[in-house]
Amino acid sequence: MSILVVGSVAFDWIATPSGKVENALGGSATYFSLSASYFTDVRIVAVVGEDFTPEHENILKKRKIDTRGIEHAKGKTFRWGGQYLESLNEAKTDFTELNVFESFNPRIPKEYQDSKFLFLGNIHPSLQASVRKEMNGTRLTSGDTMNFWIQRTHDELVETLKLINILLINDGEAKMLAGENNLLRAANKVLSLGPQALVIKHGEYGATIFFREGAFGIGSHPFRAPALPIDEVKDPTGAGDSFAGGFMGYIASQEEINREVIKRALFYGGVMGSFAVEKFGTERLQSVTRDEIEARFQIFCELTHLG
Amino acid sequence: MSILVVGSVAFDWIATPSGKVENALGGSATYFSLSASYFTDVRIVAVVGEDFTPEHENILKKRKIDTRGIEHAKGKTFRWGGQYLESLNEAKTDFTELNVFESFNPRIPKEYQDSKFLFLGNIHPSLQASVRKEMNGTRLTSGDTMNFWIQRTHDELVETLKLINILLINDGEAKMLAGENNLLRAANKVLSLGPQALVIKHGEYGATIFFREGAFGIGSHPFRAPALPIDEVKDPTGAGDSFAGGFMGYIASQEEINREVIKRALFYGGVMGSFAVEKFGTERLQSVTRDEIEARFQIFCELTHLG
Repeated sequence: MSILVVGSVAFDWIATPSGKVENALGGSATYFSLSASYFTDVRIVAVVGEDFTPEHENILKKRKIDTRGIEHAKGKTFRWGGQYLESLNEAKTDFTELNVFESFNPRIPKEYQDSKFLFLGNIHPSLQASVRKEMNGTRLTSGDTMNFWIQRTHDELVETLKLINILLINDGEAKMLAGENNLLRAANKVLSLGPQALVIKHGEYGATIFFREGAFGIGSHPFRAPALPIDEVKDPTGAGDSFAGGFMGYIASQEEINREVIKRALFYGGVMGSFAVEKFGTERLQSVTRDEIEARFQIFCELTHLG
Repeated sequence: MSILVVGSVAFDWIATPSGKVENALGGSATYFSLSASYFTDVRIVAVVGEDFTPEHENILKKRKIDTRGIEHAKGKTFRWGGQYLESLNEAKTDFTELNVFESFNPRIPKEYQDSKFLFLGNIHPSLQASVRKEMNGTRLTSGDTMNFWIQRTHDELVETLKLINILLINDGEAKMLAGENNLLRAANKVLSLGPQALVIKHGEYGATIFFREGAFGIGSHPFRAPALPIDEVKDPTGAGDSFAGGFMGYIASQEEINREVIKRALFYGGVMGSFAVEKFGTERLQSVTRDEIEARFQIFCELTHLG
C-alpha cells in the first residue's frame, strides 16, 4: 500500500575521508522515497526551487515515485554542506541555506489522500502535526525529528508525538527528548508521550525498537536489529532516512501489521541504511536491486541468528 | 573442561550515579572466575596481599573455584578507585595502587597444568606470553588487553597476539591497536596479527566476533550478540571480564569448538555481562542461578531473532 512522505529535498555538498561530492540530490524525503520505493508505492510532498531540474525529478521517477506533490517555488532549493571527520558518526555543518524550504507549507494533493502509510520527515513539528491531521485515513504514521526541534519547539513536538505511531530517532535525540541518560528509561519516557513504538538508531551498532505494553502484539520486549560492519563507509548522509524508508516500505508492503512484521522491517531498515552509505549521496539507492536487498537481508540474519 | 584464568584480584572503591561501594572484591580474574564458574570448573592464578582474608577467598570457593593458584604476598592487595559519570561508559580513575600486583609473576601450580582452556586477563603482555608458553596442552587460549599495554608495550603485545586464539577487547582498544578507525578494517588488521577470532565489545550495544577466513568453521562472516537494555546499570565495573567469563565458560563446557558454539558463547557472554552490572561489585555474580542464566539467554534470543 502507498506511503506518503513529507520532508525535505535538498542539494548537498558533502566531504568525507573517502572523497567529496557537490550539489548532490539529497534531503530526508529523497533518501526515504528511494529506499521505500523498493518495497511499495511512494508519494512525496516537498518543496524545491528553480535549480531542481527534470533530470533531478527523473531520479525519483525512475523509481516510480509519485512526484506530483513536489511544489516548485521561486528561488533556490534547500542547500546543505557538511563534512564528516574520521569517526563518521557526526557531521560538521559548513553551511545551511534553507531557501524555499524556509517557508515550506506542505500541501497534500487530492490524489495522495488515500495513502495508508505516512512518514513525517524531519520538519517543524507543527507542520508534521497538520499533515497528520489532514491524513485521517492512514493506518500507520511514523516520523523523525532532531535536536533542533527537541530544544526549540519542545511543546509542539510533544503535541505531535501524540499523533505518531512509531517515532524513529537516534540515541542522542532519545536521551535529549526524555531528559534521561539511560536508554531504556529514555525509551519508556518517550513512549509515555504517545508513540506505540520507538525506534532508536544506534548508527554502526544497529537499532532497537521499544514497544508500549501490548502495542502491535503481546508484551513489551524490545527488539534489536544489527548494522552491517562495512569496510568503507563512503558517506553516512541519509543513512537514517534510508533506514526509515526500508522500515516503513517493508511494513507497507505487508498485509498485516504485527510484531513479526515490525521486527523484519527493522532488519530491512538496517539493510537499506547499509546500502545508502556505500556510495556518495543517493547513488547506491538509485541502483540497488531487490535481489541484492534480499541477499543482504540474509546476511543480516546470519549476523545475529543462532542456528 | 577446566579453565585457567590468570589476572588481577583487587579491592575496588567505586562510585556511580546509583551509589557507591568501598573495599569490594574485584579484579579481572575475580569477575572472570565467578562468571565462568556457572559453566565449568575454574582455576585461578593471581596475587593478593595480607588484607585478603579467608572470607574473601570463600566468595570464590563457594562457587567451587580452585584457589590454590592464588599467591599470598607480603603487603596490600591491588587497589583501584574510580567513578562513573552519567554515561556509565567510562570510568574516571581516582587512584590505582598496584601494591603486590606490581611484581606479580604468575606461577602455575602443577595441578593446573592439564587445564584445557586458558584466559589471559589484562596483565603485562610478556607475562601473558610466558604463561601461555608454559601451558602447552591447552585447546584454546583467549585474552584481554587494554590501552595502557597497547601504547606502552606494543611490540610485546604483538608477540603475545601470536599465541592467542581469541582476543577480547573493546571498540576503542581495537581501533587503537590497529591504528584504524573503521571497525571492520581494524578487526581484519588485528586478526592479521595472529588471533583466529576477535571479539569486539560495544558496551551497551553488545559485541561482534570477527573470524579469520576458515577459523572454527566456513567463511569469515562476523556475528553480533546484543546487550540487554537495562533500566539501571548500578555498576559497570567488571562487565567486560564477566562477559569473557561467560563466553569462555560456555565454550569450555561444550564437547566441540565450532562456529555455532562460539556464537552461543557470545550470547552467554552478553548474558553474564548483563547480570554483572545489575548490582555493585561481584554481588550479582555470586548469587545468580543457572536457571536465571538460561532464562536470560532466551530473552537475548527474543531480542534479536526473527520468528
